[in-house]
Amino acid sequence: MSEVKDYIEANKDRFLEELFGLIRIPSISSIEAHKDDMYKAAQYWKQAMLNAGVDKAEVMETKGNPVTYAEKIIDPALPTVLVYGHMDVMPVDPIELWHSKPFEPEIRDGKIYARGADDDKGQAFMHAKAFEIMNKTGKLNCNIKFMIEGEEEIGSPNLGEFCKEHKDMLKADIILVSDTGMIARDIPSITTGLRGLSFMEIELTGPNKDLHSGLFGGAVANPANVLTKIIASLTDGDGKITIPGFYDDVIEVSDEERKEMAKAPFDLEKYKKNLDIDVVDGEKGYSTNERTGIRPSLDVNGIWSGYTGEGAKTVLPSKAYAKVSMRLVPNQDNKKISELFIKHIEAIVPPTAKVKVTALHGGQGYVSPIDMPAYKAAELAYTEVYGKTPVPTRSGGSIPIISTFEEILGIKSILMGFGLEEDAIHSPNENFPLENFYKGIETIVAFYKYYHTS
Amino acid sequence: MSEVKDYIEANKDRFLEELFGLIRIPSISSIEAHKDDMYKAAQYWKQAMLNAGVDKAEVMETKGNPVTYAEKIIDPALPTVLVYGHMDVMPVDPIELWHSKPFEPEIRDGKIYARGADDDKGQAFMHAKAFEIMNKTGKLNCNIKFMIEGEEEIGSPNLGEFCKEHKDMLKADIILVSDTGMIARDIPSITTGLRGLSFMEIELTGPNKDLHSGLFGGAVANPANVLTKIIASLTDGDGKITIPGFYDDVIEVSDEERKEMAKAPFDLEKYKKNLDIDVVDGEKGYSTNERTGIRPSLDVNGIWSGYTGEGAKTVLPSKAYAKVSMRLVPNQDNKKISELFIKHIEAIVPPTAKVKVTALHGGQGYVSPIDMPAYKAAELAYTEVYGKTPVPTRSGGSIPIISTFEEILGIKSILMGFGLEEDAIHSPNENFPLENFYKGIETIVAFYKYYHTS
Repeated sequence: MSEVKDYIEANKDRFLEELFGLIRIPSISSIEAHKDDMYKAAQYWKQAMLNAGVDKAEVMETKGNPVTYAEKIIDPALPTVLVYGHMDVMPVDPIELWHSKPFEPEIRDGKIYARGADDDKGQAFMHAKAFEIMNKTGKLNCNIKFMIEGEEEIGSPNLGEFCKEHKDMLKADIILVSDTGMIARDIPSITTGLRGLSFMEIELTGPNKDLHSGLFGGAVANPANVLTKIIASLTDGDGKITIPGFYDDVIEVSDEERKEMAKAPFDLEKYKKNLDIDVVDGEKGYSTNERTGIRPSLDVNGIWSGYTGEGAKTVLPSKAYAKVSMRLVPNQDNKKISELFIKHIEAIVPPTAKVKVTALHGGQGYVSPIDMPAYKAAELAYTEVYGKTPVPTRSGGSIPIISTFEEILGIKSILMGFGLEEDAIHSPNENFPLENFYKGIETIVAFYKYYHTS
Repeated sequence: MSEVKDYIEANKDRFLEELFGLIRIPSISSIEAHKDDMYKAAQYWKQAMLNAGVDKAEVMETKGNPVTYAEKIIDPALPTVLVYGHMDVMPVDPIELWHSKPFEPEIRDGKIYARGADDDKGQAFMHAKAFEIMNKTGKLNCNIKFMIEGEEEIGSPNLGEFCKEHKDMLKADIILVSDTGMIARDIPSITTGLRGLSFMEIELTGPNKDLHSGLFGGAVANPANVLTKIIASLTDGDGKITIPGFYDDVIEVSDEERKEMAKAPFDLEKYKKNLDIDVVDGEKGYSTNERTGIRPSLDVNGIWSGYTGEGAKTVLPSKAYAKVSMRLVPNQDNKKISELFIKHIEAIVPPTAKVKVTALHGGQGYVSPIDMPAYKAAELAYTEVYGKTPVPTRSGGSIPIISTFEEILGIKSILMGFGLEEDAIHSPNENFPLENFYKGIETIVAFYKYYHTS
């Protein structure tokens, strides 16, 4: 593969500059004011794919943000790979914790620091460059399609419909995705499972206006106090979720499989040190990797009520809000879980407050079989580039659209992730090591080589 | 008193314009950026008192915001009344709920709408105008002193020291304060009890940075989840506060006294309708007025963590915060309660999070005897102006400095409040009826008449 390495070496600065151009577009999908940026990012992707040599590329409308689609069909008889990635990113707050501007990429200590550096601009863009290399060096041995969407971080609400409408266009043998992580810089891994997601918002209303906590405190229920009781009751002392029916569809993983999973290298002390925590926490009877890999969880992603500024304000607030998400394991249905959640909250809210519960977004979990040709090809590709057989792992994260692809398009996905735990995705100072960016491109090119011959 | 009424009638627009000048200064004491405004308000008060005819008026420094002191000594042998009030106001958020600008007073439906219209610019300024009337019409029959401070809304942290340093200057027979309410427009009342206050802030730290809730959720304790459990545990199902030792110093009010208190007019249906709540809530075994008047309470005044913007962000936050205040009844010591709170929170915080608890401010409760001459004078004054004997009531609110006055200066206070429950103090659209403003001035002038002869 020295030709591939040589090509990367000769073009490394340009590759980076092209990625930076994409990163500089603040394409935050959850904030309406960034709508235009979504179109800018889509156009940027279109131009990048045309430059790399596709037959056609277009920005296609959905009911929400646009999708950039591109393809190069070299021979209909050959296998087709559909690359999926997303151009949208998470919000950047708390902005004051960033050491450099989130949308002005900066290289420090061999890493790209920026929102989207890893998730998913950096990772998705590796595919554009891998394609360019194969195309320009005559190595392209498959038909290739790209579908880059702009709503992954808000749960891909319109991509399912897009897939339904363009089933023929999207026909492929495998979907290739880089939007996950690997165990460590020198320990490659392939994500074989993803958790599902139910993301909920609770709005509690007590009195119809903010009150003086002295004049009313003790006589009128405070919705912030009520909210803490509701949320506190959602998990018990063993770290179990108390929503009735929540675990009904969870498939218990066999002891044998758990033993296999436990072989994956994991340094608990380093994990704790990296997060500066004294102890880990979670569901009783499960290890840290099991708690994120094969067990569901419930987290407050945001909570707010009353006065949150400097100093004191003796207010008894009228409203209290929380964003609560549940990560689900395969076989749990996110729509069913969202309904159970709403039903449960409505059942336990006391008569002192009115409640409105909304499902903001959700997605199903996914399990990728390790005996399919694409998995074998990915395994060989990592082994060639990293010198080690990749470890199959279950990720705690969610890419809701992956299970939708299987449902609507009938196509399995292979998750070749190059992110690291310390990349701080979704956090201030998100970063992506240059090494992973370049090695990722190399591994992707290798994937096609082995996939073709599989 | 027709001469008083005539004077008010002839000068009513000027009185209002002078008050509006004070209101227009955004003297929010809890926000450091408004420091200059505190000095502007102090100067405004100084000039207003000089215009009204005091012998001397000055802006005096404290370690915090300045105090405006003014006096007119007509005869050292006569009784001396010390008027206390405050020129600082609460923050204005949520600003979007105001129907007019908080610092641009507007008259609608016979009410002044503005931050501070009631609490305490409107109420304190009535004393300036009552003094002017007595002074200009030759009715002044007592020595009079004014102490208007700038830190009441943040717990008067420096006024105790100021009193200690100026004990001689502040010598008086009674302290007269208008910073409380009356039962209704046509039902005058005198506040005979105030609750104390302990205002605390909790800061919980989980992991050292915001994490992706998919990758870490279920394995790392979420400080927002932990915070809800801590706060939820502070009150039990009977509305009792669970902090060990919390009720130790509470004096139970006798059944006889409770029967007396229950005679005060109170319309529960109107109360609930006004707040748009289906049920009231609070400590089991006590009525609504008892819950705010003679029982302590615990309220979340603010809570915040994670992502609180539009849409979804799957973050497992590093930090979670809450502002929690406790209203205390006479004989509970706020410093002791603050310590019990800190000790309790530190004892119950799980090893999964680090906690920092800070006492933001506090004050002792106060009980005013109904047999002192000043109470009798106030009773007669209200009876003359309103045609009804005022009802003695216990307020749920706190004016921490009142008990400090008794401690340091050895002077009792009489609380002649003219605010109404619906004035929305500390809330958006704070207001004060013009009727209360003018009748309040009249009642204050009457107080001096009866106090002199008592």
